[in-house]
Amino acid sequence: MNIGPEDTIVAIATAPGEASVSIVRLSGSEALAIADKVFECMAPCPSERASHTVVYGHVRGELGKVDESLMIIMRAPRSYTAEDVVELHGHGGSVCGRRILRVCIEAGARLAEPGEFTKRAFLNGRIDLVQAEAVLDLIRSTSERASAAALEQLDGRLSERFEDLYERVLMETARLEATLDFPEDELPEAVLPAIRQSLSDIAADFASLLGTWEEGHLLRDGALVVISGKPNVGKSTLLNALLGSQRAIVSDIPGTTRDSIEEQLVIGGVPLRLVDTAGLRETEDYVEQAGIERTRKLLEQSDLQLVMFDLSESVDLSELADYDPVKTIVLLNKADLSNRDRPSPSGPSPSRGSEFTFIETSLLSGHGLTLLREKLLEKLSTNADLSARPQAVISERHRGLLDQSLADLNEAMELLALNREDVIVLAASRCRDALETLGQATGKIYQEALLDRIFSSFCIGK
Amino acid sequence: MNIGPEDTIVAIATAPGEASVSIVRLSGSEALAIADKVFECMAPCPSERASHTVVYGHVRGELGKVDESLMIIMRAPRSYTAEDVVELHGHGGSVCGRRILRVCIEAGARLAEPGEFTKRAFLNGRIDLVQAEAVLDLIRSTSERASAAALEQLDGRLSERFEDLYERVLMETARLEATLDFPEDELPEAVLPAIRQSLSDIAADFASLLGTWEEGHLLRDGALVVISGKPNVGKSTLLNALLGSQRAIVSDIPGTTRDSIEEQLVIGGVPLRLVDTAGLRETEDYVEQAGIERTRKLLEQSDLQLVMFDLSESVDLSELADYDPVKTIVLLNKADLSNRDRPSPSGPSPSRGSEFTFIETSLLSGHGLTLLREKLLEKLSTNADLSARPQAVISERHRGLLDQSLADLNEAMELLALNREDVIVLAASRCRDALETLGQATGKIYQEALLDRIFSSFCIGK
Repeated sequence: MNIGPEDTIVAIATAPGEASVSIVRLSGSEALAIADKVFECMAPCPSERASHTVVYGHVRGELGKVDESLMIIMRAPRSYTAEDVVELHGHGGSVCGRRILRVCIEAGARLAEPGEFTKRAFLNGRIDLVQAEAVLDLIRSTSERASAAALEQLDGRLSERFEDLYERVLMETARLEATLDFPEDELPEAVLPAIRQSLSDIAADFASLLGTWEEGHLLRDGALVVISGKPNVGKSTLLNALLGSQRAIVSDIPGTTRDSIEEQLVIGGVPLRLVDTAGLRETEDYVEQAGIERTRKLLEQSDLQLVMFDLSESVDLSELADYDPVKTIVLLNKADLSNRDRPSPSGPSPSRGSEFTFIETSLLSGHGLTLLREKLLEKLSTNADLSARPQAVISERHRGLLDQSLADLNEAMELLALNREDVIVLAASRCRDALETLGQATGKIYQEALLDRIFSSFCIGK
Repeated sequence: MNIGPEDTIVAIATAPGEASVSIVRLSGSEALAIADKVFECMAPCPSERASHTVVYGHVRGELGKVDESLMIIMRAPRSYTAEDVVELHGHGGSVCGRRILRVCIEAGARLAEPGEFTKRAFLNGRIDLVQAEAVLDLIRSTSERASAAALEQLDGRLSERFEDLYERVLMETARLEATLDFPEDELPEAVLPAIRQSLSDIAADFASLLGTWEEGHLLRDGALVVISGKPNVGKSTLLNALLGSQRAIVSDIPGTTRDSIEEQLVIGGVPLRLVDTAGLRETEDYVEQAGIERTRKLLEQSDLQLVMFDLSESVDLSELADYDPVKTIVLLNKADLSNRDRPSPSGPSPSRGSEFTFIETSLLSGHGLTLLREKLLEKLSTNADLSARPQAVISERHRGLLDQSLADLNEAMELLALNREDVIVLAASRCRDALETLGQATGKIYQEALLDRIFSSFCIGK
């Protein structure tokens, strides 16, 4: 993309729909000149006004007044993009924003591509790639916790950790390369082991950062919770009970394919995607093999499984054989209707019963629901401390980079373990590879293709 | 509603959804004090800053940072509500706006009722009721033309006309009441006829204003266009052809019940609601009488009817007997497939055929579509000049007030026509009634119930 002085972009920055305000945002060297053309206000004209001021007036196109409007001026570099930015605040709804947008385009602005404002903020050095991704996370977040974590990331917490790792790998690489200047056999014995120890310390910090992925995945994608059980066992009641107990049901995340039986809710700051299924055993009766395959896949992908039994009917715990106890909560529902002997919550199950978590519920009365929510969070916290203060957490992209970078570091360490001077060049080369990969996290090193991939998933206007 | 100094309101002013920005707006005497509590920025603090300035910072709640944010200060009376207004601009999406809102409420603001910001603008005398209604029209508008008309209204064009009528009625009322001070039989002969003439002139202007209702109705509610015709005559093709030829299909207007077979589009600046029906004749075969009744009702309410025939089949124009020629366009479709004799576009129809508008179409190829759009607009323009520049137009509420007020004026004129001094008191009283009714248009005279009715249909945040 060519960003020249003639290239001023414009887009609607607010969501469409009936609302009080819609914002049209201009960024680029011509933003103020375009404002002079389209915005009518008391003297002085927009381009002669100070930065960070608000002006009342009207947006006017060739065919007359388009909207009553407030204009906000933020001059470079004190703006989101670090370029001159002008915001025109018009009335909300479906027409006013579009009319203002058109007038700006007629006056010489170009419609922005998705994420182009944030891309410019990155290219102009105001934020790094990790922070740019945080902007997207913040907008997409469906829970308080995800929002707080993204804000930490936007504030630069995660960038600092990546920077720290980068600097330390860079220093060890430099030390390693410096040993090449020593005449043969004159390298002090302690040098290589010391570097190896440093690299090992760094690798441990890589691992600790990688450990935040689990929470990042939960916060960004939501935990996939699969509910299974026979018909009429109370699955819908469970769904409603869980949904009813939360303040707000989050809406679909645009762009994700929504299964017809998927519901979303937030518990303890973690977005959950609840999927209803008939369970594995029953799917064996299905005519279509595809149905079984689909359920198996769901169970594999799931972060948690809720298996429901009806205590007022006969209960066959052998069905649990197919489930992973670590990821499973067994609900013994309709406990109030049951007169017969039943397995105690810690009771037996075919093979590894005592490892399963059992909860007795009477969902119609709400009995057991609080315990279920606690256990849900407990299980999900296995790999992520959800009770701690939200922290910036790495994404799938960061995990890939850290994994690859760590593999290079490990190779370098193995080479150094040989304690032979002829492999130092190779080890240093591995460290350089690790650096290059790591540099892609914050955007210290980037290709246009990487930027396109990241920013194309933004909405237009950000 | 009690608006005291302690009563500062807050709401999200942007539409929900994935977007760059969400705005939380505070209004009231405590707006700046609340900003001091929740907004963290470089010194000076918000309450010590100048009006119409933009400040970068963070919103912070009791539990920590909530969002990176811009703050905009507009001090009374130079704001939307004429009170102190603070806007906090956070990230878009479903969480950030809600978090900022909550922090503001925790800091002492009250969640605004629907339309409460605009209601305050009215109560504080910044706009009148006609302008307040224009705000709603502007946000709700689904077409350029409706938006432009609402903007004219917001600019005060319509208020001026109401004001003018009010002043003139007031003057004649005063003249009339002044005659009561004359000793009996000493009233100059010319006085009463002169007042009557003035009132008659005013009544003519009432009528001219009432004449804008038709366009207002079309712009606000959309023209109801009912399509009828036998199955397979090409109704869906017509719908698609019309929809495909416009730039954007407008979304549902929230709050209106959408029929499953209703589509919306905009032609020539007029929003149309296209409803598909099987037609009157065929509904006689229906088992349910309700179906016929429903179609009849639709036809009665409709602004325009499109009756479709298939020229490649036998055409029975006697079906047109049930339609009103003035409101009907007859489409003779599949003209390209037809070999047989057919009625000419101006050809005969059972009773009043020559009054109907006939158009030959081949919708699959697009033939006849341009002519259809022209005729559509022509028919809809019967009572509204849609080719003229958009103007402020009265609403259903205004029409009711004008009708009632005009009725009082007419009564007054009739009384004066008796040319008897003993009815002057009565006539003056009618004029006072007319004034009172008229005053409700702009809100010169209002009851709380009226305000509730108007503002409750606003969105929260406006």
